[in-house]
Amino acid sequence: MRTLIKHALGSDSPMDSIVIKGWVRTRRDSKEFSFLEMNDGSCLANIQCIADAGIPGYEHIGKMSTGAAVGITGKLIESPGQGQKWEVQVTELELIGEAPSDYPLQKKGHTPEFLRSISHLRPRANLYGAVFRMRSRLAHAVHRFFEERDFTLVHTPIITASDCEGAGEMFRVTTQDPTNTKADKPEEDFFAKATYLTVSGQLEGEAFATALSNIYTFGPTFRAENSHTSRHAAEFWMVEPEMAFCDLEGDMDLAEEFVKYLVKDILENNEGDLDIFCKFVDKSLRERLEFVVERSFQRVSYTEAVEILIQSGKKFEYPIEWGVNLQSEHERYLTEEHFKSPTTVYNYPKSVKPFYMRTNDDGKTVTAMDLLVPGIGEIIGGAQREERMDVLKKNMEEHGLSDEDYWWYLDLRKYGTCPHAGFGMGFERMLMFVTGMKNIRDVIPFSRTPGSCEF
Amino acid sequence: MRTLIKHALGSDSPMDSIVIKGWVRTRRDSKEFSFLEMNDGSCLANIQCIADAGIPGYEHIGKMSTGAAVGITGKLIESPGQGQKWEVQVTELELIGEAPSDYPLQKKGHTPEFLRSISHLRPRANLYGAVFRMRSRLAHAVHRFFEERDFTLVHTPIITASDCEGAGEMFRVTTQDPTNTKADKPEEDFFAKATYLTVSGQLEGEAFATALSNIYTFGPTFRAENSHTSRHAAEFWMVEPEMAFCDLEGDMDLAEEFVKYLVKDILENNEGDLDIFCKFVDKSLRERLEFVVERSFQRVSYTEAVEILIQSGKKFEYPIEWGVNLQSEHERYLTEEHFKSPTTVYNYPKSVKPFYMRTNDDGKTVTAMDLLVPGIGEIIGGAQREERMDVLKKNMEEHGLSDEDYWWYLDLRKYGTCPHAGFGMGFERMLMFVTGMKNIRDVIPFSRTPGSCEF
Repeated sequence: MRTLIKHALGSDSPMDSIVIKGWVRTRRDSKEFSFLEMNDGSCLANIQCIADAGIPGYEHIGKMSTGAAVGITGKLIESPGQGQKWEVQVTELELIGEAPSDYPLQKKGHTPEFLRSISHLRPRANLYGAVFRMRSRLAHAVHRFFEERDFTLVHTPIITASDCEGAGEMFRVTTQDPTNTKADKPEEDFFAKATYLTVSGQLEGEAFATALSNIYTFGPTFRAENSHTSRHAAEFWMVEPEMAFCDLEGDMDLAEEFVKYLVKDILENNEGDLDIFCKFVDKSLRERLEFVVERSFQRVSYTEAVEILIQSGKKFEYPIEWGVNLQSEHERYLTEEHFKSPTTVYNYPKSVKPFYMRTNDDGKTVTAMDLLVPGIGEIIGGAQREERMDVLKKNMEEHGLSDEDYWWYLDLRKYGTCPHAGFGMGFERMLMFVTGMKNIRDVIPFSRTPGSCEF
Repeated sequence: MRTLIKHALGSDSPMDSIVIKGWVRTRRDSKEFSFLEMNDGSCLANIQCIADAGIPGYEHIGKMSTGAAVGITGKLIESPGQGQKWEVQVTELELIGEAPSDYPLQKKGHTPEFLRSISHLRPRANLYGAVFRMRSRLAHAVHRFFEERDFTLVHTPIITASDCEGAGEMFRVTTQDPTNTKADKPEEDFFAKATYLTVSGQLEGEAFATALSNIYTFGPTFRAENSHTSRHAAEFWMVEPEMAFCDLEGDMDLAEEFVKYLVKDILENNEGDLDIFCKFVDKSLRERLEFVVERSFQRVSYTEAVEILIQSGKKFEYPIEWGVNLQSEHERYLTEEHFKSPTTVYNYPKSVKPFYMRTNDDGKTVTAMDLLVPGIGEIIGGAQREERMDVLKKNMEEHGLSDEDYWWYLDLRKYGTCPHAGFGMGFERMLMFVTGMKNIRDVIPFSRTPGSCEF
């Protein structure tokens, strides 16, 4: 029975017999024995294995080079060496799969760009193994957070017939061939109409929240925007909770609790993976994460935030005045310099926000909120939704949206309407925050960006 | 602070003050008081609320009809009535949102077809609320199972450039307009090539398993097949684990453990939702689920299975002989009549299985396995993968697949190749098994089928 290296390294006691299977990271030979540093992807750390010359399988030692798959039988013993508690005294070696000398992940530095071109091998590199274990851990923490709080997970549809909130350019989904010269008609397409990839599960989430009370979605979303920045991908994952009988304040409470929960979970349960980010990616990472867990969140209205920014006397690239959206530089000033704590800004101008947000009594702001963290700015955006039929219809009219397209969304206001609120968190943005990774392409297993859809 | 009805009903003791918010299921009035059956979607059961005439808010009682959103303040007291432990003695009523008399979910039976046409309101119906809570519970159990066993969750891509395994017809993803008469070219499309919606994350999953050892995917997959059966949808969710250094036997072990785990979890943690399926959908449901948990799984080779079917003397609609795929009727005979237990069939003919399955020494079978359960037949399909470069290339050639298209998949065999295995479970199929629901459209929040993409 194979033992994962994370369990071997975490063992309480020596083991008379252990089987390790994994890939060689490095090997050093002397005349009498060889050191093999083995990794199986279960954790960042390698386990050191000492194989005496002449043991069964040693005749293939020359082929057990970096990247080769090797099976090791031996004893788990206390390591006399520095830096590790356990090592394996090998009794038998098995060469499972060689790695020829053109194996691209030889022990040396590689650029992120090169590693993206070998995304199928990239998780074998220490840093990327850590990224993708963190991604999994963060996803599990998301589910645990909501499960503990009685939220029902809803799989909202990926293929949709409506551009729900005008959140961005959409991909068309079709069984017609767009390169065919003969024009087809939408009514002859698979779904008998034009269909797209979803940009958000929120509207469908609202339908489920107004039936099951507390729900969340966690699934892929899509933007067909020709963006070449380090923060945009055509395909990314979103977390979107929605709560019936909840107002803006309850929404902000949940968002703040959620961020703290995720960051605390990563600080406490990273099994060594956080170290590699702190060492090679961002030396202030741990400090910033602890800052978010320890500091209480500030809350400030958009109007107050604009006042603060104007009175700061600071020169911003994008001038600030009431009515414009906050830019990253503004958000970072508020959280990093002014409040020196994570900050939630609420009640934004109606003109810069989507149609479904609830209009405040002042008539010019809506119950939107953005949660800002140091180093990154907005990490969550949410709102209390407009639950009043007449106001919603008026907003839709102003946004040029027709009642017929949204008949079912309006039904939620017609039958047993109630105050409700929710938010969206870009999953990759949170993953970038907890790892310090700077490019979204490096935290997605196989990223999709304009002109690039490999693997 | 609002209390969810599931917590109120599960309370250990009376409460002097409680706030319930939800929707009226039914109301009965007498001269002195009204009974309100309230539901908030947190559980199947309603909570009974007794409001004396004349309390604050009672003046709106006439508008608190089926479907209306109502807030209730009161005391949680022991119920003198039959069938419930607690009820609420109301001290104040709040009409939050009315439901006019054309509310479609009046208390009477509705056909599944009608309810699909109001998928946005359907989760407010008892049966569908239970379906979607079960869906969430089952998804959480999937994640818990793999997290407890050190599997890393991998988000494999949804948009893909390759028809990975020829598993079925694919949807095209494009930013070109397929109804435009002017022909565009794939190289002018968003990704500079033709792209599709994924049919499986397996191949990308293999890349991560051969780096991180044990991984799983859980995400949406797509088939553009013009199927109008009760078991097919164009969009559905799949769970696909993949394990490095694992053979067919280890794969079957995991699959059997997984099925038992999920069914046991649903039996033990359904908070009353299972009752409604046993009562209204399938009276033998609980028995069948217990059968799966209690009986040990049988294993039989395909060749033996065919022998059993032939010797049964039974007339099948599809005649059985060595070399043909098993049909549902054959699968059900094996599990329901012959073995009388869940059954795993392995080593299928090479000719009926995809290119990536490992060829056995006999040259004519591959290390495929299907896990069969009573009432439904195949619920999991998996295989040990072909890890030998030369054999894999030969299989690809026989399937007309080019080395260039699969360069990265071949790389996994070139560099440190190792035996590995995995399987796929259709999430909706498992959900249908544990609820007894007969149509896949009724277990997906907003289902997508040929000609139908509403909401």
